[in-house]
Amino acid sequence: MDLIELGKAAKSAAFHLATASTAQKNRALAIIADELEAHQEIILAANAKDIELGRASGMTDALLDRLLLNETRLIGIANDVRNVIQLNDPVGSEIDSRVLENGMSLARRRVPLGVVGVIYEARPNVTIDIAALCLKTGNASILRGGKETFFSNMALVEVIQNALAKAELPAASVQYIEKPDRELVSQLLKLDQYVDMIIPRGGAGLHKMCKENSTIPVIIGGFGISHIFVDESADLTKSLAVIDNAKMQRPSACNALDTLLVHQAVAAQLLPQLAERLSDKLTFVATPEAYRLLEGVAMRREAQAGDFDTEWLSYTLGVKVVASLDEAIEHMREHNASHSDAILTRDLFNAERFINSVDSAAVYVNASTRFTDGAQFGLGAEVAVSTQKLHARGPMGLEELTSYKWVGKADYLIRS
Amino acid sequence: MDLIELGKAAKSAAFHLATASTAQKNRALAIIADELEAHQEIILAANAKDIELGRASGMTDALLDRLLLNETRLIGIANDVRNVIQLNDPVGSEIDSRVLENGMSLARRRVPLGVVGVIYEARPNVTIDIAALCLKTGNASILRGGKETFFSNMALVEVIQNALAKAELPAASVQYIEKPDRELVSQLLKLDQYVDMIIPRGGAGLHKMCKENSTIPVIIGGFGISHIFVDESADLTKSLAVIDNAKMQRPSACNALDTLLVHQAVAAQLLPQLAERLSDKLTFVATPEAYRLLEGVAMRREAQAGDFDTEWLSYTLGVKVVASLDEAIEHMREHNASHSDAILTRDLFNAERFINSVDSAAVYVNASTRFTDGAQFGLGAEVAVSTQKLHARGPMGLEELTSYKWVGKADYLIRS
Repeated sequence: MDLIELGKAAKSAAFHLATASTAQKNRALAIIADELEAHQEIILAANAKDIELGRASGMTDALLDRLLLNETRLIGIANDVRNVIQLNDPVGSEIDSRVLENGMSLARRRVPLGVVGVIYEARPNVTIDIAALCLKTGNASILRGGKETFFSNMALVEVIQNALAKAELPAASVQYIEKPDRELVSQLLKLDQYVDMIIPRGGAGLHKMCKENSTIPVIIGGFGISHIFVDESADLTKSLAVIDNAKMQRPSACNALDTLLVHQAVAAQLLPQLAERLSDKLTFVATPEAYRLLEGVAMRREAQAGDFDTEWLSYTLGVKVVASLDEAIEHMREHNASHSDAILTRDLFNAERFINSVDSAAVYVNASTRFTDGAQFGLGAEVAVSTQKLHARGPMGLEELTSYKWVGKADYLIRS
Repeated sequence: MDLIELGKAAKSAAFHLATASTAQKNRALAIIADELEAHQEIILAANAKDIELGRASGMTDALLDRLLLNETRLIGIANDVRNVIQLNDPVGSEIDSRVLENGMSLARRRVPLGVVGVIYEARPNVTIDIAALCLKTGNASILRGGKETFFSNMALVEVIQNALAKAELPAASVQYIEKPDRELVSQLLKLDQYVDMIIPRGGAGLHKMCKENSTIPVIIGGFGISHIFVDESADLTKSLAVIDNAKMQRPSACNALDTLLVHQAVAAQLLPQLAERLSDKLTFVATPEAYRLLEGVAMRREAQAGDFDTEWLSYTLGVKVVASLDEAIEHMREHNASHSDAILTRDLFNAERFINSVDSAAVYVNASTRFTDGAQFGLGAEVAVSTQKLHARGPMGLEELTSYKWVGKADYLIRS
C-alpha cells in the first residue's frame, strides 16, 4: 500500500466533494445507512472473526464489548448515519460579509478542510461515524483503526465505498489504511502535501505520538484533570448533588470529576456529608486537612505526589481544602486543568474570576463538569473534544470540520 | 539562557495578561510608544551597530534598507503602536450565546491563546509590531529575530520590558531569545508545554523547518502561486488594468500575480494588447500557443518544467492559453494555487464555479489579487497571512490571536 497514492486519491476526491451538493452528500449517507443494514450478515461475520481473535489474545471483557457488533448495534450505527443527514451542512454559508469602502463585497465562505486523517482505537462504530461526518462536510477521509478491529473495519469500509459509487461520488472519499505496519502511521503523519488535519481518537499516548511526529496540524484533546471548586458561598446541599453527578454518573468519561477543591470555610460542613453520601462506592485521596474531615470513611488515603495530576477515570476522587479562590486557581494551573472545570458559588465576582482565570476548554458556574459533550451542547455531532487552543476548543461539531476562504467580488477593481 | 525557564515565565505572564483589562493593556501600549520615542538615541545607536556589521558582512543595499531605523521610521513604529490602542480588543466577547433546553446559558467566550512564539527575519519593526498585537490580545510572546538585527532588537525589547514594568504588567509578557545558537530555535519549537502557537515570519524555508520540527501548532503561510484566469466573457480592456495592477504594483509581494491563464477564445485579442502595455518592463514565460501570440515581445521565452510552480516575486509573468474554465482550474490545482487567485468574467455560473473549485485562501471575482492584506480587508492589523486551513486562513487580525472557551452557567445543574 502506497500512502502517496492514497493521499493523491484522497485529495482528488476532496476536490470533487468540495463542490458536491448537500443533496448528493445526503443521498450517499442514506445509501450507506441502508447498505449497512442490508449487509448485516457479512459485517457481523467479519466482526465475529475480530471477537474470536480478541478472545484468543486475552482481550478483557470490557474491550471485547467495545469491539462487539450485533444486530441492534448495527441498526443503531445506521440510524446515527441517518441523523447526520438531518444536520445542517455548514459548507457554502458566508460569515462576516461586508462591503469595503472601495466597493468590494468581501465575505468568508465556509469550505471543507479537504482531507482529514483519523487514527483511532478499537471501536468499529468510529469508522462509520467519522466517515459520515467527513462526508457530510465535503471532506475526504483516510482512516486508520486498531488492528483488533481489522475484519470489521474492512467490511464496513467496503460497504461505504460501494455506497459512494452508487451515489456517484469517488470511492476514495473514504479510504482505509489496511496494513497493520506501524510505519504507515508515521507516513500518514508526514503526508502534509495531501492531508489537512489529523484527528487522533484514543489515549494520551496516541495524542502525544501524533503531536511529536506529525507535520500536519493535529487536534489534541480528550483528557485533562477536571476540578470542582466549592466556594464558601455555595449552596452545600445542591453542591453535593452536582459533585455526585460529576464524579459518579460515568467515572470513565474524560469530563468526570477528578479533584474536588473545597473552601476552608465550608469544608468541615461539606466533607462529612459527602463522605456519608458516597463513601460506600468512592475512594478518597485527600490532603491532610481533608483527610481528617473524612474521618470514618473506609476507603481514604493521604494524597501523594502525582495524585492531583492523575485522571482517575474510576471511583476515586482527589480532595483538597483551600484557603481561597486564588489558591484553587493556583492549584488548577499547576495540575493541568484544561478540559472541564466548575465553580459552585453564589458570588458573581468569584464566578467571573474563575471563568477568566481557569485555562480550560469548558468552564461551568453551578453545573456538573459532565456537560462537555457535543450532544449536550446541541452540536448534533461530536467529532472530537479538543483541549488545544487553535482552530477548535472543546466539543467539535460539523463546523469545526470546515475552514473558510475569503471571497471578494468587485467590478474590475484594482488596488491603489 | 534556559528556554524552559523562559517558557514558564511566559506562561505565568500569560495568566496575568488573560485577566488584564483593556485599559491596562492600552496603557502599556501608550507607554511603549512614548518610550520608543524617548529612547530614540539608544535605539538608533544600537541599530547603527547592526548596520555597520551588516555592511561589513556584505549585506545588499536592499537588506540594509530593511534593517535601517532612523528618526522618521522610529516615529512611524511608535505611531503604529498607538494605532493598535485604537483597535477593538476581542478578548471577553461572547459568540454563539444560547440557552439550552435544560436551562444552561452556554456561550463561547473569546480568550487569549496564551503564549505565542514568533520567529522572524531581519526587520526590527516586526519586534514592536508583534509584541504590540500580542499584548493587545492578552498573549505573552517569545520573540526570536534574525542575528542581523541583534543590537536593534535588544534595545527595542529593553524599552518594551521597561514600559511593561511601568504599566504594572509582567516584564516576561514579551521575551526575546538572545543567543544566536540555532539549537534554541529547535528548543522553542518543542516547548509545547508552555507555548500555544508558533508564527514564522519569513521565507518558505523557515516555514518548512517549523512545520517539520514543531510540536506546537504552526501558522503556515505567506506564499503560493497567484493566478488570474481571463474567461471568454471578460471585459478585455478592464482586464488589462487588473492584470497590470496584480503583476506590476508590487511584484515582490506574495499576492502579486505569477501566472496568467487566458481562455483560448480571447487569447488572440488579449495577449498582443498585454504585450503592448507591459513588454517594456515584463518578461513573459509562455506556453507555445501564448508564446506565438506574444510575437514581437523582446523578453519572452517558452515555459519549462517548474516555471508554473515558481513564485516570481519579480517582473516575470507566466502565461498559458487554456481551452476552458475546467482546464484553468485543473492547472491551478496542479500548480499550488493556495494564496490569492482571481477570475475575470461576466458569467455568474463560471464565477461561482471558480470560487468553489479553487483551493485558495482568497478568491476574487473581477478584482486584483493584490487585495489579500489585513489593512485592505479592514482588519486593522495583520499578524500573518495564513495559507493553511486550520484556525485561520488568509490575513490574520487580532481575533485570530485569540481562542475561545465554552462558558456554561446554570443553577446547580446535573446531567441526567
